Amino acid sequence: MADIGGFEADLSATAARVEAVLRTRLAPIGGRLGAAMRHAALGGGKRLRPFVVLRAAALFGIAEAVAMPAACALELLHCYSLVHDDLPAMDDDDLRRGLPTVHRAFDEATAILAGDGLLTLAFETLADPTAHPDAAVRAELVVELARAGGTNGMIGGQMRDLAAEGRFAAGLPLTLSEAEIATLQAMKTGALFRFAALAGAILGGAGEADRQRLAAYGAALGRAFQIADDLLDEEASADQVGKATAKDRTRGKATLPALIGPGAARDRLGEAVAEASAALAGYGDRAAPLVAAAQYAAARQR
Amino acid sequence: MADIGGFEADLSATAARVEAVLRTRLAPIGGRLGAAMRHAALGGGKRLRPFVVLRAAALFGIAEAVAMPAACALELLHCYSLVHDDLPAMDDDDLRRGLPTVHRAFDEATAILAGDGLLTLAFETLADPTAHPDAAVRAELVVELARAGGTNGMIGGQMRDLAAEGRFAAGLPLTLSEAEIATLQAMKTGALFRFAALAGAILGGAGEADRQRLAAYGAALGRAFQIADDLLDEEASADQVGKATAKDRTRGKATLPALIGPGAARDRLGEAVAEASAALAGYGDRAAPLVAAAQYAAARQR
Repeated sequence: MADIGGFEADLSATAARVEAVLRTRLAPIGGRLGAAMRHAALGGGKRLRPFVVLRAAALFGIAEAVAMPAACALELLHCYSLVHDDLPAMDDDDLRRGLPTVHRAFDEATAILAGDGLLTLAFETLADPTAHPDAAVRAELVVELARAGGTNGMIGGQMRDLAAEGRFAAGLPLTLSEAEIATLQAMKTGALFRFAALAGAILGGAGEADRQRLAAYGAALGRAFQIADDLLDEEASADQVGKATAKDRTRGKATLPALIGPGAARDRLGEAVAEASAALAGYGDRAAPLVAAAQYAAARQR
Repeated sequence: MADIGGFEADLSATAARVEAVLRTRLAPIGGRLGAAMRHAALGGGKRLRPFVVLRAAALFGIAEAVAMPAACALELLHCYSLVHDDLPAMDDDDLRRGLPTVHRAFDEATAILAGDGLLTLAFETLADPTAHPDAAVRAELVVELARAGGTNGMIGGQMRDLAAEGRFAAGLPLTLSEAEIATLQAMKTGALFRFAALAGAILGGAGEADRQRLAAYGAALGRAFQIADDLLDEEASADQVGKATAKDRTRGKATLPALIGPGAARDRLGEAVAEASAALAGYGDRAAPLVAAAQYAAARQR
């Protein structure tokens, strides 16, 4: 086990630097729309995805400042997905990170447009010459982020998630197999983490073998992150007997703990962390922050 | 006045080719999400924005097939904006092009995700190597499309439009000046038309002077398009006495005909067409399809 305390300090300090860049990037956007976008993207979050971009890029000798625009682009895209997922027609959440969601703090139309604005800004940020001197790198990052966030990635995963909830709401049994849940979560959560790690290799001009290693690491990290998330949700319900059952279960979300039980899910979590770690074995100690990120994702309590 | 009949035949034949490429691009997207995206993007529309991309690129010697991916990327982005604008929280429209809007034909969550998917696919299409052999061109197109569709462009214009409607709904007077309406519409409608024409110059590797001419043409075309749209809406109300007043007026949309009257708006329309035409004077007859496009946008009856 790596030094998780040291890792958390590093993560937290990095998050503050990411936050500062995001703040600068969003500051010029005026009016209610700008305020809504800042509400969505600033003031919280572990910034784990940008952290992975930055540390993956460092493996290939890329300084943090150089990788920062791509890291922020990914975070902007992640924040847009939270705004749209929280909408009444989707997960209908009132709170996020202890604050009202964007459609509650503003209104639904503003939340839709703020999400659209964050998504659009993500691509502008990634394609802008400040993101990398080589236009081929910028264009490749745009293609990869669009794939990770698109219909074969995050959006497709969210759609499958809603379909599973719809079946549940209609009183139909959850019919997804473990493999189908794994695919759904690889799309919904895994694709952005996979992009985060892959982006570091692309920024560093790495070859195909390095790209595959980083992509494998990112996908395994995403799996660990999602299983840990679902376990946290399950355990909240077990610990709070007499209160409403956990959010995911109430909604019929397709999760691994719900299908195979918390014990077996915990085994899968351990396997995912081991896989993330193994993918980076060839980089030795230089990969320690990324290995620690996978351990952190698995062990986190929130 | 150019040969509008010949222009319409050209526009319609070009639209069919754009449609075919969009159909191929959207075909692999499975399930309800793919069906919703095809519902949104196929089977209709004049495809005026992609037409402008293709004919502007032709001015710089770029073959239609080469400019087609960028043209389709713009249309995908335009279609996403229609899906989100039609949502209940926005314009709450049930019909578009005589068919149920996406959230009516499917559901609201699917419409939000389908719009997100079309926007994401637009950027993937533009950044993909098939869009242009030169990555610098692709990256620049991504930046320009993101700016045109972003908070200083289309999304910002839609936000201002909603703010004006909100004031109207609250019983407050419409306080936008003619200049403010012009700014709103330059953002909401003009930015995408400006991008359409500018994209042709970027695809053709044109210099700054050509870019400025094309951008000026596109902005003027967008202005003509929007004024004609608003006049059509106004006239529908004047011609149908005893029925509900026109959609825009009922909602308090900020339009030029509502502020300065149809006659003065028609003068502005004529000025916009003349400006579009003048911007391209240096290209002689080669710019005829683009000049005709501005005349068509001004004269269209739907």
